[in-house]
Amino acid sequence: MERLVFIRFNPWKKSYKQPFGAARVNSLVRLSIEVIAQEIAAVTLVIHKDFEETTFIPMEKHEGDFYSYEYFLNQGPGLYYYHFEVELHIDGQRQKVLFGANQEGGEGQIQQLQSDVWDFQLTCYAQDDAAPQWYQEGIFYQIFPDRFYNANPSGVLNQRKKNSFVYGTLEDEPLYIKNEKGEILRWDFFGGNLKGIQAKIPYLKELGVTGLYLNPIFEAASNHRYDTADFLAIDPMLGTEADFIALVESLHRNDMRIILDGVFSHVGQNSRYFNVDGRYGDDQGAYRNIRSPYYSWFQFINYPETYRSWWGIADLPTIDKTNRSFQTFIYGGEDSVISKWTRLGADGWRLDVADELPEEFIRGIRENLNQFSDKVLIGEVWEDASNKISYKERRNYILGNQLHGVMNYPLREGVIALLTSQASPEKIARSFTRLYENYPKDIFFNNFNNIGTHDTERIFSVLGEQIKKMDLAIGLLFLFPGVPCIYYGDEVGLTGGKDPENRKFYPWNREDRTIYDLYKKWITIRQTTPTVIDGELAFFYTDQLFGLLRYQQDQYVALVLNPTSIPCLVSETLTFLTEENKVTNEIGQRLANQTIAENSYFLLSSQS
Amino acid sequence: MERLVFIRFNPWKKSYKQPFGAARVNSLVRLSIEVIAQEIAAVTLVIHKDFEETTFIPMEKHEGDFYSYEYFLNQGPGLYYYHFEVELHIDGQRQKVLFGANQEGGEGQIQQLQSDVWDFQLTCYAQDDAAPQWYQEGIFYQIFPDRFYNANPSGVLNQRKKNSFVYGTLEDEPLYIKNEKGEILRWDFFGGNLKGIQAKIPYLKELGVTGLYLNPIFEAASNHRYDTADFLAIDPMLGTEADFIALVESLHRNDMRIILDGVFSHVGQNSRYFNVDGRYGDDQGAYRNIRSPYYSWFQFINYPETYRSWWGIADLPTIDKTNRSFQTFIYGGEDSVISKWTRLGADGWRLDVADELPEEFIRGIRENLNQFSDKVLIGEVWEDASNKISYKERRNYILGNQLHGVMNYPLREGVIALLTSQASPEKIARSFTRLYENYPKDIFFNNFNNIGTHDTERIFSVLGEQIKKMDLAIGLLFLFPGVPCIYYGDEVGLTGGKDPENRKFYPWNREDRTIYDLYKKWITIRQTTPTVIDGELAFFYTDQLFGLLRYQQDQYVALVLNPTSIPCLVSETLTFLTEENKVTNEIGQRLANQTIAENSYFLLSSQS
Repeated sequence: MERLVFIRFNPWKKSYKQPFGAARVNSLVRLSIEVIAQEIAAVTLVIHKDFEETTFIPMEKHEGDFYSYEYFLNQGPGLYYYHFEVELHIDGQRQKVLFGANQEGGEGQIQQLQSDVWDFQLTCYAQDDAAPQWYQEGIFYQIFPDRFYNANPSGVLNQRKKNSFVYGTLEDEPLYIKNEKGEILRWDFFGGNLKGIQAKIPYLKELGVTGLYLNPIFEAASNHRYDTADFLAIDPMLGTEADFIALVESLHRNDMRIILDGVFSHVGQNSRYFNVDGRYGDDQGAYRNIRSPYYSWFQFINYPETYRSWWGIADLPTIDKTNRSFQTFIYGGEDSVISKWTRLGADGWRLDVADELPEEFIRGIRENLNQFSDKVLIGEVWEDASNKISYKERRNYILGNQLHGVMNYPLREGVIALLTSQASPEKIARSFTRLYENYPKDIFFNNFNNIGTHDTERIFSVLGEQIKKMDLAIGLLFLFPGVPCIYYGDEVGLTGGKDPENRKFYPWNREDRTIYDLYKKWITIRQTTPTVIDGELAFFYTDQLFGLLRYQQDQYVALVLNPTSIPCLVSETLTFLTEENKVTNEIGQRLANQTIAENSYFLLSSQS
Repeated sequence: MERLVFIRFNPWKKSYKQPFGAARVNSLVRLSIEVIAQEIAAVTLVIHKDFEETTFIPMEKHEGDFYSYEYFLNQGPGLYYYHFEVELHIDGQRQKVLFGANQEGGEGQIQQLQSDVWDFQLTCYAQDDAAPQWYQEGIFYQIFPDRFYNANPSGVLNQRKKNSFVYGTLEDEPLYIKNEKGEILRWDFFGGNLKGIQAKIPYLKELGVTGLYLNPIFEAASNHRYDTADFLAIDPMLGTEADFIALVESLHRNDMRIILDGVFSHVGQNSRYFNVDGRYGDDQGAYRNIRSPYYSWFQFINYPETYRSWWGIADLPTIDKTNRSFQTFIYGGEDSVISKWTRLGADGWRLDVADELPEEFIRGIRENLNQFSDKVLIGEVWEDASNKISYKERRNYILGNQLHGVMNYPLREGVIALLTSQASPEKIARSFTRLYENYPKDIFFNNFNNIGTHDTERIFSVLGEQIKKMDLAIGLLFLFPGVPCIYYGDEVGLTGGKDPENRKFYPWNREDRTIYDLYKKWITIRQTTPTVIDGELAFFYTDQLFGLLRYQQDQYVALVLNPTSIPCLVSETLTFLTEENKVTNEIGQRLANQTIAENSYFLLSSQS
């Protein structure tokens, strides 16, 4: 059966959808679909809010072959999903043609079966939610505190933990100490501490860093400290509360900020709250006393031996975040965890496994922070945060007054796929554009960008220790919308695969200066190019090239990468995925017939 | 077939054999056997020197029913083995009766078959070999240097080894860091050092210690340092050569001596000599260069990957101790290893795995030491050192001018078997008497006695942490002939099973003072009882009691133990295994009708 029908809808172009991307609740979204056929009986917008009933809305022919509808987002914030139905008269019969999304984003496609139809996503957010200016303009540096610097004389360590091991030298390769079953027998420490971080503020400032994100610093048994033992105490190996205050004051004097890691999904089994090994008293803690004030925080299956724990790891009993007493403890008052450390100077929080925290819990933390001025709240999410389903629930944490932004792991994935030629420039440009489309714009611009963290392989290793590819990766990190964060040591060539190799001690006096200079270069570009902070965004590509454009009226900066091992003469037209305009045209003209060397880039700035 | 014959021979009694025990070469040994039968055709001494031809010597009736022979030990030092044949006329036929040793020692027995006959052993030594007086009168203390004391301020460690681990606290339980195959991944250190030992001289002196035996202190990769990397350098983590000199001088000023551990059977694979990992230079060492001066020390099977190694442990390549260049390096001249450290003040050496070293090698070391005055040489042997066969060779190292003595592990075994009721008092008394019989007397009195070392479980743990049994064990250690050596920490209650549990850090400020006081008590007894140093020795027993007697003419001290959990009234006669005399009779009288409490002892001293 041959159908004589042409249908086009591309939500990334203004003629089909306005505004681009996510829209605010109770605003209008104009959707226009182009349909060319002999006899069109009806064009219908088929739309439903996430988990709610579907509405069929007739669309009206507006101009040319466009059928349009102005949809009123009046069902509250959340995700709206839509596709189109076109009914034709063919040989006297009505026939339905379905038109839905393409999995790669952008232009949609006709689909044969109802079950094949992919909906377009329309993210509807509750309110704008710009992060504080210091955050948006920031250049961050992530420190895994045990692995950065120890400022004590003669390398003496602060209070060493019983039954732990300390590395022989700061150059040793990290190693897990496990038994035959793969269980950790003892924790391994290098002994970095808060005083050490404070001592290195001049180094960080010189690099251009304006803010720190610290992995957890509260009392815990492990070196990563995601197994909190006491939310109200600095880990003694890292230092004292006075050391924390001194660090914060010193940072603030230097116009630097600090974001803490809030790990509220679970605690350590030997914490003050659970207390399996009894270190907090024989009859203290939920595990040892059913009358413990913490008992209600946990979910015992068979008291006390079996209980819900994070990913089934017995060392990390899960907390019931809907428990009022826990909520009060974490954010409920002046003595709460969030209040205490924020009052002492924390400028923001990064929520561990944010996608496993209930909405009310994240909102509670945010409301606590809103009482202070200028604080930021970001969350750990690994995927597209707009549509993640976790524990069978859609997560709404980026729809306003919850998270300001999330850790941008999709950026890292895209950068790596692009630079290691695992995906074409087109594919990467599409995936970034889709993320841009799905996130509320403020959230997208508040994202906490990385090309590596304590949970990933070192970027330099992933890129095969190729300096030129590293240059491209850093360039993308610093020109992408959002806030760049350098994982400590990446800037001086630390290598390594996944944990524990990615947690080596910072190589003081053994730094790779070549890489450091690349970071300096891109940081300077960012510092001197205001459009990088809040400029508009567009991605473009050719077969071989990938381009990122940031612009604001006539001002622009465009980064064009040739991630392949072959030089590239720009002979084909550039494809821009979003609306074209004067700037995109100018970019096209300026690049025409240029040659970009292999594994290299062009950086074009507006000639003003 | 019934034989009417009575035969008796007990080498532990004077009427049967003189002198008791081992005899010097070219001396006479009188053997007398008592034979009572109707018609005795011949009594024959059947004797052969170890691995040599058997001689049949007719014995002559001397007095009463005793047939005697004075055997002249003129075939050189070594072991002589003998038994007896008695020929009888029975019913006109000559019939042979064989009489050999009993496996438990002492009185022999008739044996039916030639193949069942056990020979009596007669040890013939080359020369008397009394150790220096300071050694014979010494009270030693064995230190595993990583685990004793770190005298640096703030617990800073001397040069920490790359890719090693340091324990979090000095109270941590030792732990091997291994992979799934059980191979050691990294070495673990507490960080004790030579300065630490020096700092604790007052403690040791107060305890009554007069000499130290240190586990290896030369450069090595492991914490035990039996994998020598450089025989001519102090391990940097333990300190410097200056630290060693300072320690020795400080010891000598305090009338204390020091014995070093000489580990010459093998080296570490990453030593200066073998150099697998290249740390001593890319083209240095036998593994990396066939023209290395050390190449001839090793035995390669398939160069360089396969080579002979100690007990097949690739980490420990075996050295060919018959290699001249190695011999010269170890003891051959003024710059040799033995000369260097002895000149710097070592008072003696303990040879690791002495039973795996060739005779010429041990003799070479001894001759080097003989050039100094007053030095001592002892060896590690775990069994009865008089008749050990190792690598298919009988070991002659205790027959004069080789080892002064050996580590007395059989003492430890006997003490434990006795105190844990695994063997009867009789059995233990016999085994000790047999050792006394088999060793040249000087050697026996030069033995380096222990009830625990770095290679055994902690004695307090073996004894089920029973203080009263500990008291008995310490008593035996300090009254036994030979030189007592305390394994560091035993005196303050350190517990633990085998390696690594037996190598905890000394529990400074957590000492068990009760056990310390027991050590003090027995040390004081030893210090005030001269017969303990060189007095004669006799063992005795009843069903329930075990006795150790040291005496010199009328002076004596006797320790009578009741190792059982039932009080014991002395109603039976004491059995003395060797010759009885005035002293043994007096002991018997004094003990009669005494009651000795369970797990307790009587200490009888001569009433002069």
